[in-house]
Amino acid sequence: MDELLRFFQRELPGINDFLDREAGQLNGLVRDVAKYIIGSGGKRIRPMLTLLFARALGYAKDDYHAIASALELLHSATLLHDDYLDDAELRRGRDAAHLVFGRTETILAGDALLALANEMGARYGNPRLSWLLARGIMETAAGEIEEIEFSRNPSLDRDIYMRIIIGKTARLIECACRCGVALAGGSPEREDAAGEFGLNLGIAFQLVDDALDYASPTSETGKPEGGDLREGKVTLPLILLMEEGDEAGTEVLLEALKEGSLSEAQAADILDQVREGGYSGKTREEAALYVEKAKACLEGFKPGEELVVLRQAADFVLTRTK
Amino acid sequence: MDELLRFFQRELPGINDFLDREAGQLNGLVRDVAKYIIGSGGKRIRPMLTLLFARALGYAKDDYHAIASALELLHSATLLHDDYLDDAELRRGRDAAHLVFGRTETILAGDALLALANEMGARYGNPRLSWLLARGIMETAAGEIEEIEFSRNPSLDRDIYMRIIIGKTARLIECACRCGVALAGGSPEREDAAGEFGLNLGIAFQLVDDALDYASPTSETGKPEGGDLREGKVTLPLILLMEEGDEAGTEVLLEALKEGSLSEAQAADILDQVREGGYSGKTREEAALYVEKAKACLEGFKPGEELVVLRQAADFVLTRTK
Repeated sequence: MDELLRFFQRELPGINDFLDREAGQLNGLVRDVAKYIIGSGGKRIRPMLTLLFARALGYAKDDYHAIASALELLHSATLLHDDYLDDAELRRGRDAAHLVFGRTETILAGDALLALANEMGARYGNPRLSWLLARGIMETAAGEIEEIEFSRNPSLDRDIYMRIIIGKTARLIECACRCGVALAGGSPEREDAAGEFGLNLGIAFQLVDDALDYASPTSETGKPEGGDLREGKVTLPLILLMEEGDEAGTEVLLEALKEGSLSEAQAADILDQVREGGYSGKTREEAALYVEKAKACLEGFKPGEELVVLRQAADFVLTRTK
Repeated sequence: MDELLRFFQRELPGINDFLDREAGQLNGLVRDVAKYIIGSGGKRIRPMLTLLFARALGYAKDDYHAIASALELLHSATLLHDDYLDDAELRRGRDAAHLVFGRTETILAGDALLALANEMGARYGNPRLSWLLARGIMETAAGEIEEIEFSRNPSLDRDIYMRIIIGKTARLIECACRCGVALAGGSPEREDAAGEFGLNLGIAFQLVDDALDYASPTSETGKPEGGDLREGKVTLPLILLMEEGDEAGTEVLLEALKEGSLSEAQAADILDQVREGGYSGKTREEAALYVEKAKACLEGFKPGEELVVLRQAADFVLTRTK
């Protein structure tokens, strides 16, 4: 993973400086919220993917910051609204923004970041970039809405689960990859290949996230352990457990999730069962298949540093523990 | 106003059908909220201005619905978030959306409409349209944020007041006018003239809105009488009153607005004073100046039905009573 690490160490400061500068120009009411969520140590995977694909296609200019950062800001905007609507208490190990800054500031900061992201993408006068960004925003919003709808009427339906993780996570990562190709003026075929890479990587990323939610102590993920379960979210580890359990138990659980009446003892019991059955690991195995699919999409690209880093990034998605 | 009426009667159904169709494709969780706010009888001024300027420049195609409607959806999105954050009870004479559908549905519907608006604007592959839309969103979000910030620390500063009404209202109307020219492929000079028209019209529109807030019974405006005052918003009628009042009284009022401690008796007293002093009418007089400025911007455009309607629309802003 040396190349990955070196690339991130080299490029991260530029992205972070840019993000900080842009957030610093927002109105005082929302500026600190924006800086707080941006500064809370996200992995900057989306900006890096945009940059990597642009460079992989030979793009040499240094004006990539706005489009690359736009995707990070979009992501931050959705975190702000989601955490508020979920009544989440923690985000990346820190108090959720709405608890620090209040409801009005947090909702408006989300709106401002969404608007800023959009404006940053429009700076290039490149209609393909604007279209990709607009689609990415639309699909991400739709994915989140579907997730919340699903949590109100949970089931073990894998198709719905996959559609949700594609919508809420993978489409924006696909978008980041496509934007890199579009910035470099690559062909539609290149863009599709990059998009396919991002889509599969995004699915793997979310599967690992959902696996970690059942497997990691809070201190590593910065989120409460079993948080998804307690929030009533049905994710793959739980689906795998329930598929092998008895029907009556499943009905009881789904009803409790729907009503928000899951007791602490029930939750602890399920966390134990998921751990004992190794369903977190099985979810990771599923993620590994998507990582392989993602790497296969890179075959037509010119070998070079970027390709090495993209492959390592794909592997990193699987090995991360937080 | 015959031409204005005829134009709206002819074109409104097309815009409304389009809006309804687009909203109908949103996820079930937010679809009804979107249809509710869209169907609550807005004046569709923004879409009409886009269409009028496109037609005034000879644009004959029928693909204007998406960009024209985008501006209406943006406007609707901001109403949803604003009413929720303001704890508003009424909007256009009906219960505010968050009271009917709930917090999550309303916030997410705002996000979805914003995303949809953006996507609709990107459909044309016209980078100027995308840029205008992105700027319009950005400025509108900033204007709203500034308004809320101002309400927390109110003053009689006319410059701040003007900056806020430009940001929260006039920029989006300017954007609607510019988009019409951009759609028709008009020159930068034409676009600037249309934008100037929209900016001045937007200022007049908001001034009249602020005048109506002090002058109209609820049954006409669909908002509670003196609602701005009760919400702690300082608008021009109040600024005019206080500029002629004593300093001590002003301090007391500003403090009460800031603390949200204005009593019913204090509010009623101020409403009386604004009425007796004719400050609502004086606000309208100020609006009339901006309407004249707006109409002067139309001089370089080719005479025709659209120009007649645009002039009548400008006059209508002044004469409306709700």
